[in-house]
Amino acid sequence: MAKKLWGGRFKKKVNKEFFRFQKSISYDYKLANYDILHSRIHIVALKNAKILTPGDAKKMDTALKQILKGIRNKTFKPNLASEDIHTDVQNRVEKKCGKLALKLQTFRSRNDQIVFCEKGYCDDESGNIADLLGEVISSLEFLAVKYKGFHFVGYTHTQRAEKIAFMSYIAAFESMFTRDKERLLEFRKKLTLYIGSGAFKGSSLIKNYDRAIKEFLKKTFEKALSGKIKAVENPPDNVSDRDFIIEFLSILSIVQMHLSRLAEDFILFSTNEFNYMELPEDFCTGSSLMPHKKNPDFMELIRGYTGRIYGNLASILTTMKGLPLTYNRDMQLDKEPLFSSVEIIKDELAVLADFIKGIRLNRNAIVESLKDESLYATALAEYLVKKKIPFGTAHEIVGKLIRYSEDNKCKIRQMGNETLKRFSHCLNKKVVDQIFE
Amino acid sequence: MAKKLWGGRFKKKVNKEFFRFQKSISYDYKLANYDILHSRIHIVALKNAKILTPGDAKKMDTALKQILKGIRNKTFKPNLASEDIHTDVQNRVEKKCGKLALKLQTFRSRNDQIVFCEKGYCDDESGNIADLLGEVISSLEFLAVKYKGFHFVGYTHTQRAEKIAFMSYIAAFESMFTRDKERLLEFRKKLTLYIGSGAFKGSSLIKNYDRAIKEFLKKTFEKALSGKIKAVENPPDNVSDRDFIIEFLSILSIVQMHLSRLAEDFILFSTNEFNYMELPEDFCTGSSLMPHKKNPDFMELIRGYTGRIYGNLASILTTMKGLPLTYNRDMQLDKEPLFSSVEIIKDELAVLADFIKGIRLNRNAIVESLKDESLYATALAEYLVKKKIPFGTAHEIVGKLIRYSEDNKCKIRQMGNETLKRFSHCLNKKVVDQIFE
Amino acid sequence: MAKKLWGGRFKKKVNKEFFRFQKSISYDYKLANYDILHSRIHIVALKNAKILTPGDAKKMDTALKQILKGIRNKTFKPNLASEDIHTDVQNRVEKKCGKLALKLQTFRSRNDQIVFCEKGYCDDESGNIADLLGEVISSLEFLAVKYKGFHFVGYTHTQRAEKIAFMSYIAAFESMFTRDKERLLEFRKKLTLYIGSGAFKGSSLIKNYDRAIKEFLKKTFEKALSGKIKAVENPPDNVSDRDFIIEFLSILSIVQMHLSRLAEDFILFSTNEFNYMELPEDFCTGSSLMPHKKNPDFMELIRGYTGRIYGNLASILTTMKGLPLTYNRDMQLDKEPLFSSVEIIKDELAVLADFIKGIRLNRNAIVESLKDESLYATALAEYLVKKKIPFGTAHEIVGKLIRYSEDNKCKIRQMGNETLKRFSHCLNKKVVDQIFE
Amino acid sequence: MAKKLWGGRFKKKVNKEFFRFQKSISYDYKLANYDILHSRIHIVALKNAKILTPGDAKKMDTALKQILKGIRNKTFKPNLASEDIHTDVQNRVEKKCGKLALKLQTFRSRNDQIVFCEKGYCDDESGNIADLLGEVISSLEFLAVKYKGFHFVGYTHTQRAEKIAFMSYIAAFESMFTRDKERLLEFRKKLTLYIGSGAFKGSSLIKNYDRAIKEFLKKTFEKALSGKIKAVENPPDNVSDRDFIIEFLSILSIVQMHLSRLAEDFILFSTNEFNYMELPEDFCTGSSLMPHKKNPDFMELIRGYTGRIYGNLASILTTMKGLPLTYNRDMQLDKEPLFSSVEIIKDELAVLADFIKGIRLNRNAIVESLKDESLYATALAEYLVKKKIPFGTAHEIVGKLIRYSEDNKCKIRQMGNETLKRFSHCLNKKVVDQIFE
Repeated sequence: MAKKLWGGRFKKKVNKEFFRFQKSISYDYKLANYDILHSRIHIVALKNAKILTPGDAKKMDTALKQILKGIRNKTFKPNLASEDIHTDVQNRVEKKCGKLALKLQTFRSRNDQIVFCEKGYCDDESGNIADLLGEVISSLEFLAVKYKGFHFVGYTHTQRAEKIAFMSYIAAFESMFTRDKERLLEFRKKLTLYIGSGAFKGSSLIKNYDRAIKEFLKKTFEKALSGKIKAVENPPDNVSDRDFIIEFLSILSIVQMHLSRLAEDFILFSTNEFNYMELPEDFCTGSSLMPHKKNPDFMELIRGYTGRIYGNLASILTTMKGLPLTYNRDMQLDKEPLFSSVEIIKDELAVLADFIKGIRLNRNAIVESLKDESLYATALAEYLVKKKIPFGTAHEIVGKLIRYSEDNKCKIRQMGNETLKRFSHCLNKKVVDQIFE
Repeated sequence: MAKKLWGGRFKKKVNKEFFRFQKSISYDYKLANYDILHSRIHIVALKNAKILTPGDAKKMDTALKQILKGIRNKTFKPNLASEDIHTDVQNRVEKKCGKLALKLQTFRSRNDQIVFCEKGYCDDESGNIADLLGEVISSLEFLAVKYKGFHFVGYTHTQRAEKIAFMSYIAAFESMFTRDKERLLEFRKKLTLYIGSGAFKGSSLIKNYDRAIKEFLKKTFEKALSGKIKAVENPPDNVSDRDFIIEFLSILSIVQMHLSRLAEDFILFSTNEFNYMELPEDFCTGSSLMPHKKNPDFMELIRGYTGRIYGNLASILTTMKGLPLTYNRDMQLDKEPLFSSVEIIKDELAVLADFIKGIRLNRNAIVESLKDESLYATALAEYLVKKKIPFGTAHEIVGKLIRYSEDNKCKIRQMGNETLKRFSHCLNKKVVDQIFE
Repeated sequence: MAKKLWGGRFKKKVNKEFFRFQKSISYDYKLANYDILHSRIHIVALKNAKILTPGDAKKMDTALKQILKGIRNKTFKPNLASEDIHTDVQNRVEKKCGKLALKLQTFRSRNDQIVFCEKGYCDDESGNIADLLGEVISSLEFLAVKYKGFHFVGYTHTQRAEKIAFMSYIAAFESMFTRDKERLLEFRKKLTLYIGSGAFKGSSLIKNYDRAIKEFLKKTFEKALSGKIKAVENPPDNVSDRDFIIEFLSILSIVQMHLSRLAEDFILFSTNEFNYMELPEDFCTGSSLMPHKKNPDFMELIRGYTGRIYGNLASILTTMKGLPLTYNRDMQLDKEPLFSSVEIIKDELAVLADFIKGIRLNRNAIVESLKDESLYATALAEYLVKKKIPFGTAHEIVGKLIRYSEDNKCKIRQMGNETLKRFSHCLNKKVVDQIFE
Repeated sequence: MAKKLWGGRFKKKVNKEFFRFQKSISYDYKLANYDILHSRIHIVALKNAKILTPGDAKKMDTALKQILKGIRNKTFKPNLASEDIHTDVQNRVEKKCGKLALKLQTFRSRNDQIVFCEKGYCDDESGNIADLLGEVISSLEFLAVKYKGFHFVGYTHTQRAEKIAFMSYIAAFESMFTRDKERLLEFRKKLTLYIGSGAFKGSSLIKNYDRAIKEFLKKTFEKALSGKIKAVENPPDNVSDRDFIIEFLSILSIVQMHLSRLAEDFILFSTNEFNYMELPEDFCTGSSLMPHKKNPDFMELIRGYTGRIYGNLASILTTMKGLPLTYNRDMQLDKEPLFSSVEIIKDELAVLADFIKGIRLNRNAIVESLKDESLYATALAEYLVKKKIPFGTAHEIVGKLIRYSEDNKCKIRQMGNETLKRFSHCLNKKVVDQIFE
């Protein structure tokens, strides 16, 4: 058990099983860089408040920068004996700076650090996911352009409905993912990382933070963070607030819902029966028993992950239900669902962007399907309307024509003028040929 | 069974049990006014496309206005034999205009009407809920002002933490509901009601709608709708899209989460044990067995409704999972969860705004609690830090002091200088008196 | 506002909006008959405890039987001004028996009545749903027998896998619904309706109930209830307990999951592309725009209702989270999700039992699909294994053969001995013909 | 990338990013021992079918036993380059037995292995959790016995209701956990591990399994598994079936709901305000800022984990929605939610059993609360009823008495006979003293 940030009032040593149970280091280590960011600004505020000498402030900042360097070059390994990442970072500073490190936590609570770190994470990852959505949209455009001019079969109720341009079909997905991207960017824009809440009532340093933030950002050239980090305005709300995680996971749930629909369509269209699409072989897997199988596993896994993404949203919503103000330990459990959804979505989108480029359309099968006369029924009704037949009547005429065609196993295209005229005087072979092209 | 909008291609009559099962009139009648709005714009487009004569257009518009009048003065009763509200409205027009009504559905699909109506509903109700949130915020301000200057006990982990201003405590809820309100207004701003999708590929009239919308809005002085209704841009996406419902129900889930936290706090604070708050008696109920009971039922019901609001979000998310493009009948089932959440939240907020105004604080009990010395532990540690003791050490000193106080059942305020100095040379009776005021 | 069961300690009249908000009569009226059952047993206990004279007991029992008669012949209309069904029944008894009715609530709390009624409802409805599942299983058997001897295409990953008997395919669903039925019957068997909890600590009459239950059941010949109704054993647990609702809704969630899989399969198999199945026309609907459409709406609605059934489970689970013992008003909100799931499932199953009988298989399309050589790949590998080739090698041989067939657009059935032997010396035309029958 | 169990029909190498995305070894390695069990029975069947010589069968069985030994003594480390645990085990056998290992997968599909392994896991873990529940029940009994004879304050609506025995209060939780344990044991009893499904239509060896199972169990003395492993009866259902996971996670959701209620109560009762309970210090944590804090973190984490357990149930339910028969790759994603819920619940229960034993009651505070007169209101009403006052009237009398007491700030115990008689002639000081003891 590594050194903890509390304990003076406790007589008994903490129970080992409980300590293991309550630790968060195994997942919150992902927030290390944001914790260091918080500490570095905090140090500036402590220095300005004369709690740290400039020399001591510099010493600690240097120690933190060293740790940050390790994180950036991936050599940082969390000490799994620590309680959480905040403690872990503090212990590392202590190793480098000795007793001086005992001043780092001055007027600061993990309640404030946690929400700051989580917002930092959401800020970065909402940006990353927006970028990946951009790549998927590009791949969809690539596919649409590759098959420019292709017609496609449009469906409602998984039943053939009308002929549409393949580009229009693909544009529907582009439109969905564009909305998703916009939602993420709006979400990101609103995110503000507050500092200075103390445990919940506001730190004694609260008035020092605005200046400290400016000084820090200027010194470190972290322009991207300008305007994003602020001295806290409503401390009890700030440490209680997990709205941003719910918002983020809600947006990701919609992304995932869209992905599941794309997956369902592509699974259908790549069956032997539809046969409109060939999925890229290098993204499929086989069977350990059936030698012929080439399964659309990637699409199935995407569809299946919908459970996980929705479940993570349900998880955080449930956890937050009925919590008294302000911070409660329950809220520690917001991290794993957040990280899980972010990582799944990123993995899906990264692979999907490549996958889509590998899709090939099977023109023959599509053309064959487009011969289906029912796809032109609506156009036929529209023709009748233009001939002054009320739509309700036109709809019924075409309905009966189709029934006749089915009952008599006779294509409309093959019906003679006499037959056609029985349904409407406006119908004849020429008209049919024109519409059923 | 009332007249349906389809049927020509069917030989068998629809099974009665199935027809009853699939009808939506019992709930979608709530969309009647939006369906009429769609029809009135559609009529202008049909007239401009010469499918309707100006006279016929006027005749139908008049019929629709009459139905609308009935809706507005609450005399409209849906015909529960109809399949859905769209059919019901069409049948009413037929009663008033005869065969002419058969032209109303020309080039139009319910797929387009449904999403249009649902967006209209979300537009109005997001506005209504934002207004109600405004009222709750006003009531919270009223309460904060009424008890201006009061101190209160601040909690973390449901354990006493530090003294805070009652106003700051209430401000946390104001801040939550203000975020909720902003989310609703942003959501509303983004909502666009598209018209002209046809079944999914775009109606033949698609080019007529922009002009028809302008003409209609000008004629009816419906300025509020200007910019909100547009000719559809991506028809297959439009009829497939239910993102806005998920977004709306996600926002409402956060509202409800906030409500559940307020409820939990107020239930706690109105127990005999906390006793900080007296809930207004006219919003409480008694027991059929225990004559003394005055239960915080309103708060409990609010907390309990969290299940319903989260469940409704889970419902629509699940329904939308894995649906192939474009429209599928599954999507009909989006309405009941939407209506349910909107109605629950509106009821809660309306009652809550009055409820909050009736809350009375119990000053004596609060003052009694504020005597608890642990509430000043953090301030004491901060004092030591100002005396140049590193925070980590100060934290430990105060921790030990508290343990000593508990073990010896001796209040810190009652300790002599000698005892205090054993913990730190900076401590003495005077300092303690100052901090524990 | 109708008369309430509480109020003596209250000075202010209850707020009207709040009263409306908290009422449950609009849905809990469905429990009327169970409330009467509780009252009738309670009256026997009161009589045995000499709190009621035999004459008064009889008078009230007669009043209750009259109300029950109204419920059974569907003339009972709840008074929507009442707070809940328990109050409503009490008020009706008062109308019939005057002041005597004031003795009905003696030593009794609605906390005890509510859970008793809900269990009664679950008992009946779990039985009803088990029966309906039985009907669906019968319909599936009818279908299997009708198409006895038919082969069918078996799928994994929505990709053709192996030929199977149609009966085996249908048997998978029978097996699912049989498990569901067993789960319901086990659930029902375990359900015990306890009486005598008082508010939560046990009524003063607690020792009278066992005899009262026996006396009542004997008198009324309600044998079905024998052993099902018991004097309460653990009163605080009994009024707190909603496990049975969660259990019931979990079982129904599995039923619904099975239904959604059947629906998905039947939607697929009735597409133009698969074309294996013709869904009964009288259970399909058309389109208001596209005259040719015959949509599998019933299947889509079933698939869509999965959202509702899962959402209802999420709702009750969330509501019960973190409730302190014993009864809390939050628990009132368990009823609507319960009733909703029960009613949806019953409607689905009732219609489904008829629907399935109307399904027709399209033999030609199935036979056509069965010509697909990949369906026999596994059988071919098994043949090679019987010829002493290790399975891993056999799997690879067949994999390569299929690839060759695809690349050269040459059916395996059409390959000559020379070609076949290139893949394995055990292969030849005769073998192929035998396996690919 | 380690050797895979498929690939002959594939021309392209699998995409690396996709391969990484679809692998399950990082979690399904937990099923290693069940996979070996499946293989060992399978080998007996292969031997009996003469596909393996007795010598070869023995050779492979020995290899498998060696791997199993590694698992049991915790030296087994999954090769994370493998696709899944089934492949990993096969590759290990190949290392030990060479080419012979290619015969292991003969007539066998991972579809069959996966469901077999998952059921094995559920079987063991449902037993483990039932045991842990048993330990928690023992700890509750220990606590009840320790405070035998103590009275306690009973609550409804978090408002004081009536005095109850502390033992009765604790018995409510014992009753809940006993129901949970029974549910788990019933679940376990029903679980059957089927073998022989092949990919979904039944393996060619299907008739060999019954004998093979018997032979294997006899040879290995694995009596516990007797009757638990069977030759498959309905193969397409077996590979499609995940009901048991949903059932298990539903049961665990109820366990967790109970835990969250216990946690809520213990958090309340250990506040400064209630002060009935002292939670064991070695299971609490402090604050990094506030030196006095002793937070009920363990209880909060338990309450918070409710989100995760419910979310995992939502996850698997959503994933299974609308999957066509039979096996789909989506189903791979059932494992992580299952493992997550099992591990969380086991950790919670293990720590809880110790935690409960450390709880100390604060007799003084409880006795103080028991002086609250409202706790005796119901008993007073019951007294009046025994004096022949109708309950409704008695309820109102006591209600008014309480109101009078509150308005005049005069305890009922302190009222004179004259005052008391104003409310009912049956009331007097002696009676009050008796009841309010």
